[in-house]
Amino acid sequence: MSTTLNLGLIGAGRIGRVHAESLTRRIGNVHLRAVTDLFTEAAQTCAKEFQIPHVYADHRAILDDPQIDAVVICSATETHTQFIVDAAQAGKHIFCEKPIALDLAKIDAALAAVEKAGVKLQIGFNRRFDANFRHLHEIVQSGGIGQVHLLQITSRDPAPPPISYIKGSGGIFLDMTIHDFDMARYLVGDEVEEVYATGGVMVEPAIGQAGDIDTAVITLRFKGGAIGIINNSRQAVYGYDQRAEVFGSQGAVEAGNNLPHNTRHSTAQSVESPKPLYFFLERYMDSYANEMRSFVEAIAKDAAPPVTGLDGRIPVVMGLAAGKSYRENRPVRLSEIDN
Amino acid sequence: MSTTLNLGLIGAGRIGRVHAESLTRRIGNVHLRAVTDLFTEAAQTCAKEFQIPHVYADHRAILDDPQIDAVVICSATETHTQFIVDAAQAGKHIFCEKPIALDLAKIDAALAAVEKAGVKLQIGFNRRFDANFRHLHEIVQSGGIGQVHLLQITSRDPAPPPISYIKGSGGIFLDMTIHDFDMARYLVGDEVEEVYATGGVMVEPAIGQAGDIDTAVITLRFKGGAIGIINNSRQAVYGYDQRAEVFGSQGAVEAGNNLPHNTRHSTAQSVESPKPLYFFLERYMDSYANEMRSFVEAIAKDAAPPVTGLDGRIPVVMGLAAGKSYRENRPVRLSEIDN
Amino acid sequence: MSTTLNLGLIGAGRIGRVHAESLTRRIGNVHLRAVTDLFTEAAQTCAKEFQIPHVYADHRAILDDPQIDAVVICSATETHTQFIVDAAQAGKHIFCEKPIALDLAKIDAALAAVEKAGVKLQIGFNRRFDANFRHLHEIVQSGGIGQVHLLQITSRDPAPPPISYIKGSGGIFLDMTIHDFDMARYLVGDEVEEVYATGGVMVEPAIGQAGDIDTAVITLRFKGGAIGIINNSRQAVYGYDQRAEVFGSQGAVEAGNNLPHNTRHSTAQSVESPKPLYFFLERYMDSYANEMRSFVEAIAKDAAPPVTGLDGRIPVVMGLAAGKSYRENRPVRLSEIDN
Amino acid sequence: MSTTLNLGLIGAGRIGRVHAESLTRRIGNVHLRAVTDLFTEAAQTCAKEFQIPHVYADHRAILDDPQIDAVVICSATETHTQFIVDAAQAGKHIFCEKPIALDLAKIDAALAAVEKAGVKLQIGFNRRFDANFRHLHEIVQSGGIGQVHLLQITSRDPAPPPISYIKGSGGIFLDMTIHDFDMARYLVGDEVEEVYATGGVMVEPAIGQAGDIDTAVITLRFKGGAIGIINNSRQAVYGYDQRAEVFGSQGAVEAGNNLPHNTRHSTAQSVESPKPLYFFLERYMDSYANEMRSFVEAIAKDAAPPVTGLDGRIPVVMGLAAGKSYRENRPVRLSEIDN
Repeated sequence: MSTTLNLGLIGAGRIGRVHAESLTRRIGNVHLRAVTDLFTEAAQTCAKEFQIPHVYADHRAILDDPQIDAVVICSATETHTQFIVDAAQAGKHIFCEKPIALDLAKIDAALAAVEKAGVKLQIGFNRRFDANFRHLHEIVQSGGIGQVHLLQITSRDPAPPPISYIKGSGGIFLDMTIHDFDMARYLVGDEVEEVYATGGVMVEPAIGQAGDIDTAVITLRFKGGAIGIINNSRQAVYGYDQRAEVFGSQGAVEAGNNLPHNTRHSTAQSVESPKPLYFFLERYMDSYANEMRSFVEAIAKDAAPPVTGLDGRIPVVMGLAAGKSYRENRPVRLSEIDN
Repeated sequence: MSTTLNLGLIGAGRIGRVHAESLTRRIGNVHLRAVTDLFTEAAQTCAKEFQIPHVYADHRAILDDPQIDAVVICSATETHTQFIVDAAQAGKHIFCEKPIALDLAKIDAALAAVEKAGVKLQIGFNRRFDANFRHLHEIVQSGGIGQVHLLQITSRDPAPPPISYIKGSGGIFLDMTIHDFDMARYLVGDEVEEVYATGGVMVEPAIGQAGDIDTAVITLRFKGGAIGIINNSRQAVYGYDQRAEVFGSQGAVEAGNNLPHNTRHSTAQSVESPKPLYFFLERYMDSYANEMRSFVEAIAKDAAPPVTGLDGRIPVVMGLAAGKSYRENRPVRLSEIDN
Repeated sequence: MSTTLNLGLIGAGRIGRVHAESLTRRIGNVHLRAVTDLFTEAAQTCAKEFQIPHVYADHRAILDDPQIDAVVICSATETHTQFIVDAAQAGKHIFCEKPIALDLAKIDAALAAVEKAGVKLQIGFNRRFDANFRHLHEIVQSGGIGQVHLLQITSRDPAPPPISYIKGSGGIFLDMTIHDFDMARYLVGDEVEEVYATGGVMVEPAIGQAGDIDTAVITLRFKGGAIGIINNSRQAVYGYDQRAEVFGSQGAVEAGNNLPHNTRHSTAQSVESPKPLYFFLERYMDSYANEMRSFVEAIAKDAAPPVTGLDGRIPVVMGLAAGKSYRENRPVRLSEIDN
Repeated sequence: MSTTLNLGLIGAGRIGRVHAESLTRRIGNVHLRAVTDLFTEAAQTCAKEFQIPHVYADHRAILDDPQIDAVVICSATETHTQFIVDAAQAGKHIFCEKPIALDLAKIDAALAAVEKAGVKLQIGFNRRFDANFRHLHEIVQSGGIGQVHLLQITSRDPAPPPISYIKGSGGIFLDMTIHDFDMARYLVGDEVEEVYATGGVMVEPAIGQAGDIDTAVITLRFKGGAIGIINNSRQAVYGYDQRAEVFGSQGAVEAGNNLPHNTRHSTAQSVESPKPLYFFLERYMDSYANEMRSFVEAIAKDAAPPVTGLDGRIPVVMGLAAGKSYRENRPVRLSEIDN
């Protein structure tokens, strides 16, 4: 490996372009050398925008490039595990977007390939790299609230995605709540053993017709006894609502929303402050750059990536358990899903 | 009834004295004429402090006083229904502290006596009269957040009560959460049909030894589809934590904690703001005065009291359902308790 | 003096009634025995509302009542010094509303009479007893911001008083800013030696026609080197705006406004929080009760009152200096006024 | 001019590198083609870090490069006007850091050269491009607070610069307050006609020995009658304190500080929130990128730059007037400086 890390990008869609921006504009000692996408045009547009020198025909061409040290997998979810296996066998380090897959057997096969190859794998749970949630994690880890008793996560999108997206998403628990499942583990520092999920179609009837729900509340029982609550909605009309609180024996720590500016306007009618940032990229762009920086550093320093393959697998188990809980309206132990 | 309403106070303990203060110092056109308590000394001390002219031997003496228009029942929970029945039969209007009773049959008998006598009955869910929660209620009622989707209530005491109190309390759901059950109905404006409760002993092992828990999370399913979440703890070391948020199709409205002063102290070490008010009387004194004012007004104007006997009964059903849900670790429909 | 302090109220207007409420409903070990007012009807109404047993013809009758230990002077400003002198000569302790007078010679005569008689005198700068400003004072006094460098006071009324009031008020600096002059001394803990005042008629032309201004900015130079800034307006349309910040070598401490409730309403249009409390009695009622409690305690414990006659005199000097500074548009030293 | 704008950077010190980062990483359709610096090594380091192809010997070489459309002047203040004149004569558009110069005659000569050459000139008052202050400006401009009555600017550095810097800075009014003078004009939308400045040495005696002060309060009288107050300190130990409030006939709008994260940590001891961002680059990086983007757009669209040469000149007049006011302890009209 050269002192400058060379990377290849597999998948030049929205999230692929986010990582391309981080790698080309925000991170030092790294070179985004090649990009590929099922839609050649997307790859070419991306290459032009971010001055990526090579556009390859497919992921194989990236894996065959001996100059490339690591790949960033941003393709469709159903291709993730195949690309992970191929990249591992080619000896490339791997960053892969969440979820690894919606099927545990595929995930296990991919993780086994990674382990066998001895390459590094980091999963794209970017919110761990957000300044708000990182601070909560640090306060909890440093004992700043004592023993954790309760966790509350409010996670609401500003508007629902297209129905076409919903249909292929694996459902709200595996598409949206999966971020919160990861956040719950990250903030509490413990594993969940049972979930109870309830919810409904309150925002958009078409989501119900597609077999999904758009509003959900999930209760988590952690092994150490703490209880977590996640509430999700596909539509908070006032903006992207991303908050959390961890409460314990010695106190509590909470994160509020990020705003476009810190102002207040007072009139005879009202006192107004800004709405939360609406678009996920405005809200989380720094966290995307930070996670990619961590990935690059893990490789440079030959250290363990901060979000491992197992960290990618467990939220899928939680999502499957939540789905079962919702359908059967009863608490479901994770061991029912993954025994 | 004279233009000045004459009242008798039954029970001169902590909450009785709160109401005595409201009636003698904060509300006009009302006269607190008599007080009684099992402990004569308590009645005498109260009479002296609030200049109540008569100390009667027992509640019967108050009911026999033809000058008295209404009674305020602040005695031990197990005496409530008997005193309600007696007062109703004596033709006195009744304000009774929550919970009416821990037993539905007793409650029903008391409510029947009230109805037969045609007197007014108001139950002491004081938090409805708090400025924060009242504003939430008004915003929701006026359509300010559209259709309600989610409700979150955080309700945490600053410190657990004595174990002796815990033992006679009916358990956390009937003693502490009962306020939040009422708040949930008040804020959402709908009835709950199913609850799921989980929790544990995290604060104080002696509470567990007394057969109770000190930390709880309760999920509520409303008839109209909305979902509510209540989280309770017997100990928030930073103070009395009383917050709520209602989220709907057109927005959200939330209430934060009340603070002793609105200041901020910035140094090289930290930026500090005050902790929430610690003591429930500091936090809720205004609401106690407001509820008593509403009771007096309801009598003066011959209007329905704002918190009815049924409003007192339903949270008991919810508390019983929550207890069953916790013990059996499954969602429980209210119809299982009250059919 | 009996163990219960007996007081007489001189002046039953708005502020007189505020103190009557504190003395009769909020403070123990005190008895408001008599009231007088130029308008007999006002005295009678007040007596009835607060159950004051005696309505006397004039202040002399109060002073002649041997049962009365202390008087509360709430009459028109021009009568203050005469009543102080009379009360002192009668051996009564004195609480007097601000300003003592608009004329230094009269003030000095009154303070001399008080000193000669050896009675206690407290001046009604109630804001010192407000929880927000008291906390700032305590932080500064305890060294929590190190050496004081800067002070900022924002003090804006919700709406201008009637022009008739303006005409007899002594002008904005002696009527409105006088509170902030006292607050400046209280917060910084030092004396001012020079002021520079500027301002204008921005709110209400009639105020200008009455020879006054309605908007002002006053810069204060303290003896120890600190600099203070006060900004005043007769009309903040969003409510009563009462804030302060003290900044020093080790940090800063600031006080925000008090709100009617702690809520936030988020919609697709805006995020709204409540406007500051509008009416001065809502905002400062607790401080009025606290100052009267302090007065009563000072007498009971034979201690120095917390706001002395000198504390009442100095802000008048500052107001006179500010007026001169404004008229001459130059910094004016207090020694030019009071040499 | 090509569709991609080619720029040359004159001065590769701290602020030069800030603009280099904006131009190479954050703005499209722009190419930073060359850099020069008195210290060749600084130019070379900058060129390497930001992949700037040419390092030229001096500013003449940049002006002689026919490919270069515009220059960004970040050299020492005393060189600004010469470089502006030279660049204008070479037909290059000009972005110049503030202050243009400390001498009005030099400024006027430079502005005359710009006007004669017909090139564009933008001055580096970056804070106009900050999201907080921009929002205040927009609210005021759109009539959101009615007629402006008062302006308050709190502008405090986290720590004083080296004494060597202080000595060549022109003094606090021309080095630090100059930003606030610009902000005052930007927020109020009117010109100042008189200033009164006071202050002292409170932070660092060595600043006093260098003939400067470290703490200042400046009162501004605007032509339209509004009054502004600026308070400055060279050291706010809790971080970079950058706030403003504009108050008017119909309301007020205020900007608070930006924080590293939006969290709150509550314990039995305290409730802590984060300190303001400490370093000016963290606080204002976005504004630097935005101002450079505006400069590039003004050239691309052949529009007037948003911060003109006159906008650069007036705050210097204000700074000179403030200095005179401070020395003579009296209000000084700007016409005394610039007649």
